[in-house]
Amino acid sequence: MIEIIGLDADDTLWENEHLYHQAKTKFAQILENYGDPEELITRLDKTEVRNIEFYGYGIKSFALSMIESANVLSKGQLTGDEINKIITEIKEMMAAPVELVAGAEETLEKLSTKYDLMLITKGDSHEQETKIAHSGIARYFRYLEVVGEKSEASYRKILSQFNLDPTRFLMVGNSLRSDILPVLKIGGQAVYIPNAQTWFHEHASQEEIAEVEYAELEHLSQLPEYLERLK
Amino acid sequence: MIEIIGLDADDTLWENEHLYHQAKTKFAQILENYGDPEELITRLDKTEVRNIEFYGYGIKSFALSMIESANVLSKGQLTGDEINKIITEIKEMMAAPVELVAGAEETLEKLSTKYDLMLITKGDSHEQETKIAHSGIARYFRYLEVVGEKSEASYRKILSQFNLDPTRFLMVGNSLRSDILPVLKIGGQAVYIPNAQTWFHEHASQEEIAEVEYAELEHLSQLPEYLERLK
Repeated sequence: MIEIIGLDADDTLWENEHLYHQAKTKFAQILENYGDPEELITRLDKTEVRNIEFYGYGIKSFALSMIESANVLSKGQLTGDEINKIITEIKEMMAAPVELVAGAEETLEKLSTKYDLMLITKGDSHEQETKIAHSGIARYFRYLEVVGEKSEASYRKILSQFNLDPTRFLMVGNSLRSDILPVLKIGGQAVYIPNAQTWFHEHASQEEIAEVEYAELEHLSQLPEYLERLK
Repeated sequence: MIEIIGLDADDTLWENEHLYHQAKTKFAQILENYGDPEELITRLDKTEVRNIEFYGYGIKSFALSMIESANVLSKGQLTGDEINKIITEIKEMMAAPVELVAGAEETLEKLSTKYDLMLITKGDSHEQETKIAHSGIARYFRYLEVVGEKSEASYRKILSQFNLDPTRFLMVGNSLRSDILPVLKIGGQAVYIPNAQTWFHEHASQEEIAEVEYAELEHLSQLPEYLERLK
């Protein structure tokens, strides 16, 4: 019997990854003198993933990787104007309006009458709290949690903080790696809602997926009906 | 009757501001060709405070302000080598060991036998969770909260999430602005433990302080005795 539903935010409740795609395209334009777009973006991707251990997730981490990568790719020839353009791009990303996925608000409204909802997102507190505030959907959530990494340990810690039983917990998200696998491992349930734009870093290997059981839905708006059938 | 004690982390449980002082001194050294140290640091400080609304708190926000400020101060003449040195400085800040304040562990051990302890810190989840993990004191805390801003609203939200009564809550910290004033305003109690290195942005005006009542201790290790007398 599910009592608490955890929902991921980025690319589950609101669009997120498209901002990174746009920023990478812009990055390649700004640095057009230093290489072809595909090569520039591949190198940036590598820097970004390598830097997760130092910086964690979110726009500011990505921003620092953009600057580091630009400096390397330009062989130290980056101009003041190019740096300026990168900084402007970063601030635009930070200030981008929150675009909810289709049906998000109606779905949350329905779910919140029957379950306690918990928003669980990773990254930077300031960035995520700003998005939550601008999203207009904070009122549907009983719990809001911003964590550094979505691991088994962090899910366990969140649930135990609130004295919640993992077997009564169901997590919903677009990342097999962050939203589905760790929750199943601690005894919870999970609903995977793929998003075409999911970041490659969030993918899981075929072997990891083969061993576990989770539901998959096409759209967030199918969630209330799925939960009804589950009872 | 106090049941829950909230503790700030940066410059209350562990030293933090000295890292920023060191980084600013290093910043001025890296940019020595572009102005005198005092002027460079003052300009960086202004950029940092102005950028809080975009970036929030923490090392990554400060890092982005260093780069923006360096670009402006050098009038766009920043070299690849200088950018590199700034990035190295940022990564060193992120990886700096956690230095607990004197008596922190013994104090927490004592307190944790009588109260539920809640660590409440602002900034970036990845950064703060890494510090908490490295600090070795996570086990004394029942609750860990990383928030974007320590406002009346955020304290209210934290306490209501856990169904905690503000009148049974006491907050301890080095920032009048973030740890003391908002907690008093929601009906909690507060203990101010000044730290010589507190960031100027955390100060409060004389008028704000004149109106409210809070205790002040010189050292964290005096806290258990203070709480005994409170009963």
